[in-house]
Amino acid sequence: MADETLYYEDFEEGRAFESAERTVSAEEIIAFAAEFDPQPMHLDEAAGKASILGGLSGSGWHMSSIAMRLFYDSVVSRTAGEGGPGIDVMEWRRPLIAGDTVRLTIRVKTRRPLASRPGIGLVTMEHTMMNQKGERIMRMEAPVLIRMRNQHSAEADQ
Amino acid sequence: MADETLYYEDFEEGRAFESAERTVSAEEIIAFAAEFDPQPMHLDEAAGKASILGGLSGSGWHMSSIAMRLFYDSVVSRTAGEGGPGIDVMEWRRPLIAGDTVRLTIRVKTRRPLASRPGIGLVTMEHTMMNQKGERIMRMEAPVLIRMRNQHSAEADQ
Repeated sequence: MADETLYYEDFEEGRAFESAERTVSAEEIIAFAAEFDPQPMHLDEAAGKASILGGLSGSGWHMSSIAMRLFYDSVVSRTAGEGGPGIDVMEWRRPLIAGDTVRLTIRVKTRRPLASRPGIGLVTMEHTMMNQKGERIMRMEAPVLIRMRNQHSAEADQ
Repeated sequence: MADETLYYEDFEEGRAFESAERTVSAEEIIAFAAEFDPQPMHLDEAAGKASILGGLSGSGWHMSSIAMRLFYDSVVSRTAGEGGPGIDVMEWRRPLIAGDTVRLTIRVKTRRPLASRPGIGLVTMEHTMMNQKGERIMRMEAPVLIRMRNQHSAEADQ
């Protein structure tokens, strides 16, 4: 089953996927921040501790990019996907602190066939990132385009 | 003026900031994708050309992270900011193709003082990324927390 490609039909509303865990190092946090978001709390331990974040903490964009990778490894890599047009909402709720181990739960929120592109549907998923303490540190809702397994019957259903 | 720190009071609704330009190389696109979003159209020229994106194209998360860096260099680096809680909306409208030169326009959309944190306001900005053809490739709305220059008078105003 794990080797089978997932199509639109497989993303029933409410279906959930769990990612693997990933531990995020200080070195990764600093490297990402140096390139994309060089604010002091993302670059320096002392500056992070002095901030409201309480420690060397990853950029929100780093957290989001790590979520993308966890989503890729657990779902996208085995899905007949056609990319995503954007993000409906992203909440960075708590800091990602160096050394944290995170994992992602992906849940199908809604789905609908695309009238403009027969054979393709839009599946909106909710992504929740938890740390090793069980705290929800990130929540996102984002749509993805996914091909249908059986394009003709799906069109006929509309 | 460019050396002065920007505070909440400086972010009048409608005020706009322009970033510098940045050319994005194939090497950067591939390096980001290999780490965070290893879909074929982000890793390989031929796969990109065969996809609806029409060329080796950056991950949406890469585009967003580049926007963060352009925002940092033009605004955040000289602002009394306290970070951002998330993203209200993100639209990846057109692909970021290897070799494209992009720039960001940041416009203040709304702002309000935070009742829960006197002396700090929430400023929501609209970010628009354009490529060298003048095409709008990304649009985002996101709030940022910014300290007030004069906390006491601002509190008295509430």
